[in-house]
Amino acid sequence: MTEEALELLLHRDATLTEARLKDYYEEDEDIKVLLDSERYSLFAGGKRVRPVLALEFCKLFGGREEAALPFACGLEMIHTASLIHDDLPCMDNDDLRRGKPTNHKVFGETMALLAGDSLLIGAFEAVASNPEVTPEIAARAAAYLASCTGRYGMVGGQVMDLQGEHRKLTLDELLKLHSMKTGALINASCVLGALAAGVSPDSKAMQDTVTYAEKIGLAFQILDDLLDKIGNVEELGKNVGMDEAREKNTFLSFFSPDEAKEYIDRLTEEALVAIRPYPGSDALCSFTLWLSKRTK
Amino acid sequence: MTEEALELLLHRDATLTEARLKDYYEEDEDIKVLLDSERYSLFAGGKRVRPVLALEFCKLFGGREEAALPFACGLEMIHTASLIHDDLPCMDNDDLRRGKPTNHKVFGETMALLAGDSLLIGAFEAVASNPEVTPEIAARAAAYLASCTGRYGMVGGQVMDLQGEHRKLTLDELLKLHSMKTGALINASCVLGALAAGVSPDSKAMQDTVTYAEKIGLAFQILDDLLDKIGNVEELGKNVGMDEAREKNTFLSFFSPDEAKEYIDRLTEEALVAIRPYPGSDALCSFTLWLSKRTK
Repeated sequence: MTEEALELLLHRDATLTEARLKDYYEEDEDIKVLLDSERYSLFAGGKRVRPVLALEFCKLFGGREEAALPFACGLEMIHTASLIHDDLPCMDNDDLRRGKPTNHKVFGETMALLAGDSLLIGAFEAVASNPEVTPEIAARAAAYLASCTGRYGMVGGQVMDLQGEHRKLTLDELLKLHSMKTGALINASCVLGALAAGVSPDSKAMQDTVTYAEKIGLAFQILDDLLDKIGNVEELGKNVGMDEAREKNTFLSFFSPDEAKEYIDRLTEEALVAIRPYPGSDALCSFTLWLSKRTK
Repeated sequence: MTEEALELLLHRDATLTEARLKDYYEEDEDIKVLLDSERYSLFAGGKRVRPVLALEFCKLFGGREEAALPFACGLEMIHTASLIHDDLPCMDNDDLRRGKPTNHKVFGETMALLAGDSLLIGAFEAVASNPEVTPEIAARAAAYLASCTGRYGMVGGQVMDLQGEHRKLTLDELLKLHSMKTGALINASCVLGALAAGVSPDSKAMQDTVTYAEKIGLAFQILDDLLDKIGNVEELGKNVGMDEAREKNTFLSFFSPDEAKEYIDRLTEEALVAIRPYPGSDALCSFTLWLSKRTK
């Protein structure tokens, strides 16, 4: 796929997702500040990586994108919730996100806390009430998303991350941390897309989906660490050098930047191997390569 | 039902729920502090009102209690999450809950935030993966629980509550606030119990369930307001007089304590009318009366 075609596709997926996300909001003057706070972060121009994965995995396995769209919305809501809570003073205390002041800098800590809670809950509403799939798929998707994001997934990973500050983790600990903190939601994105297409949980196609997701989840995090070290504040839209300032454990404690790049390339190739055999994998392969070269 | 029989029943429902709640936790040294923080609040000896409602509504409509148990656990997890977040310094800044220091006083703000997030997410995992009901019921229950607790339910009500501090709300605004903040989760508790029994969403039985829930949800909140004014710190296990100190809007801005008690009795009777005709409603009727007379 050409770079232009990929850009069009990404733009289309993001636009579809954003249009659908708006459907979950109905104006209510009594809670206007909550709705504004949620939408401030939800529509702050993220890359929509998780929705793209859900939509493209659904299409890879012959599904209709409408079936994956509510899942894509749920994934983006829960991702946004985690960013809002991560930025809070009692967590990373960040003031810049996607080139804009963080949620609590604009709406205050209380509203940022509640906006995050609302987005977490809203994610499960979107997924469990997906009208385009069978109730069996909706229930399975909601349960899977929860298992990937709760205590043994994303939130548990955030805890390991915080616990690891000021203490040197082993590479194994770091791998576990990131497979939970970042990897699990990326895994959920691919799996929910496949579920929307009707892929059975114990099929070869689902195994390949999970293999792909594990590889790119890790590659994604290593690149995040690399960008925090060598990236550009303006491009990234967030402060850099923060991992070092916070004495966080990153992959760059174990690899040089060049080794990290090689590792990303190897993981990317392994991810591609898992999906390339499927007809129509061109778009997803191009996206995978794009992800590995991103500068923000 | 005699007082002794009711006490036995409540004890049994609470014990069943607590045993099942433990199933959602598997030890993991790397996130021990998160699991401890969640369990500190989850097993702090709450009244288990929401699990009792779910279990008893399920039985009222001929369902098996095993079918409602995962829903009961989800309801208690989300309720506990809301208490942990409500007590945070950026919210009500409370230091006492159920007679013990609040979660953040013991585990710190960061862990309290993440324990709340984990319990919110865990609630949906428990509900969506309920193995004792059809996927259709599990998906419907998860979506309903989310709609009752998200931006247009519990969290929205918390926002209205905070917005209303230092400003006098009308009675209509206060009724809306509480139907969202407290009422919606009580509503979900009754409805999820009925769903577990296979009650159809558009049946007369479900209408009666919702009528009952609306009445006791309101009675519950008025009594909460009353106990904050005239209750006993030791019995309540939390500080009293806090509503007035925070200039919160309560029903006691509109009613005298005696009028409030009469209002609670009237709502309780209306709730009983909705369920009394069902055979086997004796236990639930006794519980409803007990709820209206509670001193904590």
